[in-house]
Amino acid sequence: MQHLAQPIDITQIATHRHTCKAFDPTRRIPPETLTAVKTLLRHTPSSVNSQPWHFVIAGTSTSKDKIAATLAGRFSYNGEKVRDASHVVVLCARREMNGAHLDALIEQEAADGRFATTEARVNQYNARGFYADLHREELRDADQWMEKQVYIALGNLLLGAAALGLDACAMEGIDHAAIDTALGLQARDLRCVLLVALGYRSSADFNAALPKSRLPEAAVISEI
Amino acid sequence: MQHLAQPIDITQIATHRHTCKAFDPTRRIPPETLTAVKTLLRHTPSSVNSQPWHFVIAGTSTSKDKIAATLAGRFSYNGEKVRDASHVVVLCARREMNGAHLDALIEQEAADGRFATTEARVNQYNARGFYADLHREELRDADQWMEKQVYIALGNLLLGAAALGLDACAMEGIDHAAIDTALGLQARDLRCVLLVALGYRSSADFNAALPKSRLPEAAVISEI
Repeated sequence: MQHLAQPIDITQIATHRHTCKAFDPTRRIPPETLTAVKTLLRHTPSSVNSQPWHFVIAGTSTSKDKIAATLAGRFSYNGEKVRDASHVVVLCARREMNGAHLDALIEQEAADGRFATTEARVNQYNARGFYADLHREELRDADQWMEKQVYIALGNLLLGAAALGLDACAMEGIDHAAIDTALGLQARDLRCVLLVALGYRSSADFNAALPKSRLPEAAVISEI
Repeated sequence: MQHLAQPIDITQIATHRHTCKAFDPTRRIPPETLTAVKTLLRHTPSSVNSQPWHFVIAGTSTSKDKIAATLAGRFSYNGEKVRDASHVVVLCARREMNGAHLDALIEQEAADGRFATTEARVNQYNARGFYADLHREELRDADQWMEKQVYIALGNLLLGAAALGLDACAMEGIDHAAIDTALGLQARDLRCVLLVALGYRSSADFNAALPKSRLPEAAVISEI
């Protein structure tokens, strides 16, 4: 697979990407690039390979309208981006880190050839179970733990999409419960965490021309 | 800046990177690559550009030992990676999204030339304040909100480090409070969220040779 004609300097990508504020409604992500996006999402790393997520990709006017219709009141300003983007990714977390999911993970790892011995399989099952129990029983923050893994997918996607030549806008300003209802996510044991609109900027994307701003290095990095 | 001799296919990076389980203690990240890591970290995107983070980079035996010494008991298995890695990044979240930080952000954005008009500055200040208040006052999840932004930095760093030719291992299995104490983070209004060890794999890194495992696409991606 080769998606880019030019070499990528990853720091160039990181410093030149921006949050797209207006998408060109006439431009569609080509199939091979959408395949690359799915590859990026699916290969996101997660704590103990727990993959506590699902990604719903809305790529039709009907599905994007369904999401945009949930963005009322104080979040209505995000509706246009959802409608005009080529695709909108609904990044979801699982509602439970349950036994069925833990079983699916260990079976997949076995099928993928990660265990030369039964002991290796047992060790991996127990290590993941230790962290699942830590968050379920001791820290009692399993929901937040799973949502944090979804934010790894977000960081991975924003950098990766820029490398693929896509513009993107992440949106936390949404009515999560309304999206869960509109897309039937609760019945699938999922909850919406946030949206990422993907596509190509329009001339109305004022942010494309503005300089990026970050706190100075001394404010955010210390070397010891 | 050009860090790589070969073109990067970002999906190749995403599918070929792995969690490094053992680092070569003799190999150091060269200065120009460490600079690239800092560039990646500092340019991580965040909700309303809130940058609620700080990254402490431990690059000496003394500083890495100080962190490793906190990893006792059930987390002691992570100590060797901390000691043997070239550098260990302590990804921290702010303890408060307070007025001083919100002021620093808007001043930086102004200094970086993002506001052509006073109105643009006021709008940006109010938009960020809306989300800060939403999490502080209404959802009462400001700590989790800020930690989630740190996980964007994690996703960005893991993909970016792989593109830079580095091996990495993220570690949630740590004693957060002990690290806060060891590094004096509370006095700086920071809390440790997780660690990322960076460097180069050793021959003991069994995971380098194992196939990557992910749930099948149909289990984690739906198109609508």
